[in-house]
Amino acid sequence: MTKPDRYILTITCPDTIGLVAAVSGFLRDQSCFIDESAQFGDPSTMRFFMRAVFTRGANSTDITSIKSAFSRVAHPFAMQWQMVSWHDKSRIVIAVSKFGHCLNDLLHRWKAGQLAVDVAAVVSNHDDMRSLVEWHGIPYHFSPVGPAGKAEQERKLLTVVEQTEAELLVLARYMQVLSPEACAKLAGRCINIHHSFLPSFKGARPYQQAFDRGVKIIGATAHYTTANLDEGPIIDQAVERVDHTHSAASLVAVGRDLENVVLARAVRYHAERRVLVNGSKTVVFK
Amino acid sequence: MTKPDRYILTITCPDTIGLVAAVSGFLRDQSCFIDESAQFGDPSTMRFFMRAVFTRGANSTDITSIKSAFSRVAHPFAMQWQMVSWHDKSRIVIAVSKFGHCLNDLLHRWKAGQLAVDVAAVVSNHDDMRSLVEWHGIPYHFSPVGPAGKAEQERKLLTVVEQTEAELLVLARYMQVLSPEACAKLAGRCINIHHSFLPSFKGARPYQQAFDRGVKIIGATAHYTTANLDEGPIIDQAVERVDHTHSAASLVAVGRDLENVVLARAVRYHAERRVLVNGSKTVVFK
Amino acid sequence: MTKPDRYILTITCPDTIGLVAAVSGFLRDQSCFIDESAQFGDPSTMRFFMRAVFTRGANSTDITSIKSAFSRVAHPFAMQWQMVSWHDKSRIVIAVSKFGHCLNDLLHRWKAGQLAVDVAAVVSNHDDMRSLVEWHGIPYHFSPVGPAGKAEQERKLLTVVEQTEAELLVLARYMQVLSPEACAKLAGRCINIHHSFLPSFKGARPYQQAFDRGVKIIGATAHYTTANLDEGPIIDQAVERVDHTHSAASLVAVGRDLENVVLARAVRYHAERRVLVNGSKTVVFK
Amino acid sequence: MTKPDRYILTITCPDTIGLVAAVSGFLRDQSCFIDESAQFGDPSTMRFFMRAVFTRGANSTDITSIKSAFSRVAHPFAMQWQMVSWHDKSRIVIAVSKFGHCLNDLLHRWKAGQLAVDVAAVVSNHDDMRSLVEWHGIPYHFSPVGPAGKAEQERKLLTVVEQTEAELLVLARYMQVLSPEACAKLAGRCINIHHSFLPSFKGARPYQQAFDRGVKIIGATAHYTTANLDEGPIIDQAVERVDHTHSAASLVAVGRDLENVVLARAVRYHAERRVLVNGSKTVVFK
Repeated sequence: MTKPDRYILTITCPDTIGLVAAVSGFLRDQSCFIDESAQFGDPSTMRFFMRAVFTRGANSTDITSIKSAFSRVAHPFAMQWQMVSWHDKSRIVIAVSKFGHCLNDLLHRWKAGQLAVDVAAVVSNHDDMRSLVEWHGIPYHFSPVGPAGKAEQERKLLTVVEQTEAELLVLARYMQVLSPEACAKLAGRCINIHHSFLPSFKGARPYQQAFDRGVKIIGATAHYTTANLDEGPIIDQAVERVDHTHSAASLVAVGRDLENVVLARAVRYHAERRVLVNGSKTVVFK
Repeated sequence: MTKPDRYILTITCPDTIGLVAAVSGFLRDQSCFIDESAQFGDPSTMRFFMRAVFTRGANSTDITSIKSAFSRVAHPFAMQWQMVSWHDKSRIVIAVSKFGHCLNDLLHRWKAGQLAVDVAAVVSNHDDMRSLVEWHGIPYHFSPVGPAGKAEQERKLLTVVEQTEAELLVLARYMQVLSPEACAKLAGRCINIHHSFLPSFKGARPYQQAFDRGVKIIGATAHYTTANLDEGPIIDQAVERVDHTHSAASLVAVGRDLENVVLARAVRYHAERRVLVNGSKTVVFK
Repeated sequence: MTKPDRYILTITCPDTIGLVAAVSGFLRDQSCFIDESAQFGDPSTMRFFMRAVFTRGANSTDITSIKSAFSRVAHPFAMQWQMVSWHDKSRIVIAVSKFGHCLNDLLHRWKAGQLAVDVAAVVSNHDDMRSLVEWHGIPYHFSPVGPAGKAEQERKLLTVVEQTEAELLVLARYMQVLSPEACAKLAGRCINIHHSFLPSFKGARPYQQAFDRGVKIIGATAHYTTANLDEGPIIDQAVERVDHTHSAASLVAVGRDLENVVLARAVRYHAERRVLVNGSKTVVFK
Repeated sequence: MTKPDRYILTITCPDTIGLVAAVSGFLRDQSCFIDESAQFGDPSTMRFFMRAVFTRGANSTDITSIKSAFSRVAHPFAMQWQMVSWHDKSRIVIAVSKFGHCLNDLLHRWKAGQLAVDVAAVVSNHDDMRSLVEWHGIPYHFSPVGPAGKAEQERKLLTVVEQTEAELLVLARYMQVLSPEACAKLAGRCINIHHSFLPSFKGARPYQQAFDRGVKIIGATAHYTTANLDEGPIIDQAVERVDHTHSAASLVAVGRDLENVVLARAVRYHAERRVLVNGSKTVVFK
């Protein structure tokens, strides 16, 4: 059985009349079948967002011609758009420090075929996760913060991202803060998992903060990194109920399960081109 | 400030190429702006579902002409469709027995302008809720199961629905089972709240069943009624965690809050034309 | 059938060896049956918290003698304790402004016998809720912020609390901030519902703040009021998932259901003596 | 720093007056400090359940003497009881078929020190998970259903449980049904994860059943196995919201995360002696 010849089209542009008609009319004229599509017009910013999954039909031309034709549709609407094969996997690099639960979870999903990405490399400022990563057959870059300092260490991380041509950097409990330059370079291409329900408990030791405040529900947040720490566009969040019997340590244990699930979802949404950035927020077509 | 001249269009038909293009192209050609739209092609049944909210523009013709023109678009695709004013409220009749929490909740939302329906009447086989209903200025039809039997009582209920020209009957903890004939007559127009997480615990005393089984989570389910009791298309569900300390009575108390929320959501979704029936299931465009 | 002669005993004291033995041994010696009991030793503060529900037996002495005897048990442990009849209802006063959903919800629960409190009065700085409250047969005190200013208006509110001998003041979407003096006077006796998932979005317009931040889950928080606004001990929280399609207004609508449920739970927990304050946090024996 | 000399005491017996007093008085008399304790009297069965965690003090006798003395306290109340060291880890055997997510999750938690068990062996009717298990340094018993049939294969599984002296068998997506004899032998010592929100969708292919029924929430259930398939005492459940866009395959993907979390919790509760069986239900002291 051959794979369907399927593509994902994503679009962002100013909202106006006739946008859906232009896109869907184009696909019909190209003899393409729309498998899935979703769109959203944000009335507060008058921006339009769309994601469509379509399959080329027997009478369709090749994808290069389709792209070329679509650029003529897109131009008058000032669309920013992408058209990628459904079968092209996002190349990702994962950064981790000492806590390996998110890494282990991502690698298991990847190995079991549940996460449509290629894991190009894992980078860490500790050597603890080497065995796990190498058992999966993935290169492990141990890059401690040495005498040359954090800037040098970050440079090495970015070099791995560049050399692997990774499209996405996943900070899977990576305990180093990226510089504003790195954040700018990786804008919309770097996902962090923060172990609190943002905007509560930004910064260090969020579970201790949650314990001290006595909240009755804790959470985890996956977001794109920006120069303002823990302020980037939120992709997904999850929460769990806790009570007075939870110590800070047991909040950590509850939180790990949230971190796993939320980060894996965010990576999947990104890889499936379901996330479109809308200023400091996101549109997520689930 | 005048209200926007806004309409809701809902469509169900066999899935094929060009459907979104046909609808959105039509709306563009009519100078209508799409405020919201969502569509879904069910690959398991090859049925297509769509809901669009649009606003007539300065250059649009009147709505009667738009409807007439759309019927020509709809015909070749064998669309079942509706185009109703955003401002037209669904007329509903509520049936209740002795437990008034769902009724009170619906009436409060309605009175506070949070539920875009007109409550035409309340029907009950008990007289307990008369004062509450009449305080809201709504006619109360007390119709006990008398010597003439249940059929006669149901006939009276249906008469109220007909005479008020209600579009929807809401069974808000109404403890009488409708006859298959009534279910057929009200297909897709009668919403029931069942006090369990269906398909668990169908039939009578679901909280007692949940207690006996020792479940750790309970739920409530809003569904369209069908001749097969508690088997109708599910519109929404909600759940809450419980534990061994909950008696059957305290499950009832927890469940009431679920019932309120789930029934109110289902009625709102229905009133806003967000629910399309898909065989024994529903498509809900939230 | 006579009611069981049942009492609720709550205790807070420094943690040490033999506390549970002292209390449970006392109850056994008094021929009392323990229906429910829960205790918690906080290792971070070394404080002990206990709640026991017990029923006097055929051989028990009267409750006055039991209390007197228990004071001799309590003294060496420096216990702060209360022993109240299970059947004594908490007298409460409810304060409300223009949004009536929490008020309506509390009154319905009370009327239906689901909330073991006596509602002594409702106070408001608006007249909107008079009809609802009076339909329930409860005195309504309309006390707008007049030329005499907010201090005078607060004085009137506190007068109602005093004259009704209310044990608890419930701020059910009351949009006036209490003075530090009032908070001190009502310490542990005033519950507020804040319409966000604290500590996120303190202060004004939390749903707008949540919308602006683009969170994927919103919440509501019931807490005891303190002089530090929105910083008081949290009693309960609840959350609901939202997405990019929610406007600030639709977040408000989703949040209302959370506010209802969370506030009603907090009032019930308080009325059933399930909440013990632990510094800036709470112990809640559910 | 030496470990605290800490023990877990669990008790089940008929409910009567003086039980808590007897146990807590005993511990005080033995100079033991109660770190945690919880108890529950089930009014529907008049059974009493208790779990206490205590630390031997400087003046306490040795644990053998404490146990011996406690048996004299326990006898008149007909208590079934256990007193085990807090530091003794439960030995477990994990059975798996082809889906490795629960296995991977349990092994990661174990390796990271988050699950206080000793994994003695993994048994499978497939060879797929060998590499993962052996990387963790755990014996892998590949035992396919051969010509000798299922009875023979089950015998091998039980032999591993016996020879490893495992206290608990965890069915981590093990697709073979245990015989009634095996269930009887392992009563209260075998935990299964069922991939539905029981009692909905018992038996085979629950996600397909959920898809066919069109439920809006799916779940997973961890329970002790009994001869009646999927009817054993429920230990924990979890749920997640889904909608019409989920295919049966995507329900499977959502469900995997639920299965991981629920099974891990159930194993942890069991290992920490938090679960007491109450007829066909459980008491879980969280």
